[in-house]
Amino acid sequence: MSAVVDPRLSINQATIKYADLATALRVTAEAGVQGIGLWREPVNEVGLDVATRMLTDSGLRFTTHCRGGFFTLPDGLERRAALDDNRRAIEETATLAAAGAEGSTAVLVLVAGGLPEGSRDLIGARERVRDAIGELSADAAAAGVTLAIEPLHPMFGSDRCVVSTLGQALDIAADFDPAVVGAAVDTFHIWWDPQVLDQIARAGREGRIATYQVCDWKTPLPADVLLSRHYPGDGVIDFASLTQAVVATGYDRDIEVEIFNADIWAQDPAEVVRRTAESFTATVSPHLV
Amino acid sequence: MSAVVDPRLSINQATIKYADLATALRVTAEAGVQGIGLWREPVNEVGLDVATRMLTDSGLRFTTHCRGGFFTLPDGLERRAALDDNRRAIEETATLAAAGAEGSTAVLVLVAGGLPEGSRDLIGARERVRDAIGELSADAAAAGVTLAIEPLHPMFGSDRCVVSTLGQALDIAADFDPAVVGAAVDTFHIWWDPQVLDQIARAGREGRIATYQVCDWKTPLPADVLLSRHYPGDGVIDFASLTQAVVATGYDRDIEVEIFNADIWAQDPAEVVRRTAESFTATVSPHLV
Repeated sequence: MSAVVDPRLSINQATIKYADLATALRVTAEAGVQGIGLWREPVNEVGLDVATRMLTDSGLRFTTHCRGGFFTLPDGLERRAALDDNRRAIEETATLAAAGAEGSTAVLVLVAGGLPEGSRDLIGARERVRDAIGELSADAAAAGVTLAIEPLHPMFGSDRCVVSTLGQALDIAADFDPAVVGAAVDTFHIWWDPQVLDQIARAGREGRIATYQVCDWKTPLPADVLLSRHYPGDGVIDFASLTQAVVATGYDRDIEVEIFNADIWAQDPAEVVRRTAESFTATVSPHLV
Repeated sequence: MSAVVDPRLSINQATIKYADLATALRVTAEAGVQGIGLWREPVNEVGLDVATRMLTDSGLRFTTHCRGGFFTLPDGLERRAALDDNRRAIEETATLAAAGAEGSTAVLVLVAGGLPEGSRDLIGARERVRDAIGELSADAAAAGVTLAIEPLHPMFGSDRCVVSTLGQALDIAADFDPAVVGAAVDTFHIWWDPQVLDQIARAGREGRIATYQVCDWKTPLPADVLLSRHYPGDGVIDFASLTQAVVATGYDRDIEVEIFNADIWAQDPAEVVRRTAESFTATVSPHLV
């Protein structure tokens, strides 16, 4: 007997990191979950054509593609290569969204990248993020893909992502069409922000909520802080106020659970999906009214 | 032969955590450093009267007392006890400032506290911080002490300090006289903030920079993220832009180096003070013009 699964739940594939694409699609669908967010590596492992057919056969909605970005390098060959790789990611996103079930969304999540090795020029790095998105926006528009700038928690501000708040992501996005550039609203990264409720409302007004993702924050942080994400309800994040703020903007699409956690990754993916659905029903669903 | 020591450098005692008060005062003065910020525990270990005499004898300026706060508990005995303890800290601060060399400052650094056990009510916790400061402000005013609200890095937002940005600290301080309630500007905690330069300028305009503290940020973070602070120059913080922003406000008082780092704590405190002075001269002094 399985509990009721929220129809708006989507499993981000990172939550079951060690499942290959076939397994991820199977355990997600078998659990009664209707949506999935995919990562580029497992998609490219089987090739885009095969991945596309597998996704269609799964009957799942496709909710996001993870991920593009890494935009902070100064001009040069490496930056060119990163931008070209993002163009491929845009194409993958469009292809997968077209292959997913009705209600799929063509959203590519972008992680801006950290300070280049040896650099302390945070302001310059942030400007290069804006420049890169400017370069990619025409490609995204042509492909019908929304680029979702994801602010990461400030503890990742130097080594992973120089975009640290939702407000900053919206400031960058403001130069572009909301259909082309939006923001990823992930509770783990923004729950602490004194401006978070205002910025969610602003994101809604400006039409920029490209995806809403949930997982929880708990201390002590593990040795690798990247893996400090938990099932909703296992930590201290107030999913009521955040989810209500997102709902109040009119956001009515799927909601991903994305958990990086070594203990969870070590478990049977089917069990993880079941547990994820259960935590979502208990913690997030009550606020989706 | 010792290098030139910047006359505005102050050693925060936490940098040499395992030195008792006598040792901390001695190695600081012997290094040619002119100021010191003290912690309550080593002061209370010898008693306030003895500590006061020792400070006077050292010839050092007293720059801050660390620390008060822990204001997030709901009303009850524990909260009352915390507020009473803060009143003692205010008295200690005034006494020590009067005993330090000319140019000493009566600044009590406040760390707001984290979410109470089992609570997810971040907004409520933040309101209780404001309430507590309201309760203490008359005591601080009477004692001639400035309460310095210290925003801590958002990675401490749940377990140590619900005040996460300089802007938020200034919003709380705004209800009070700037001579009584200000903010601690610590590079480690705020370097990542997209609004940091604007908020430093605002803090200056509003007369709220109670203390400027420096240390560096570097990844990977150690297992205990509390101990992830480094000598200025050893990490990625741009001390030029931050220090210039502080100087531009007219801040002309002492600048503390406060480092929590297990490797540094394990070293000879005299050597740590020497190395701190050297890193300050190389990294911060050039911008103090």
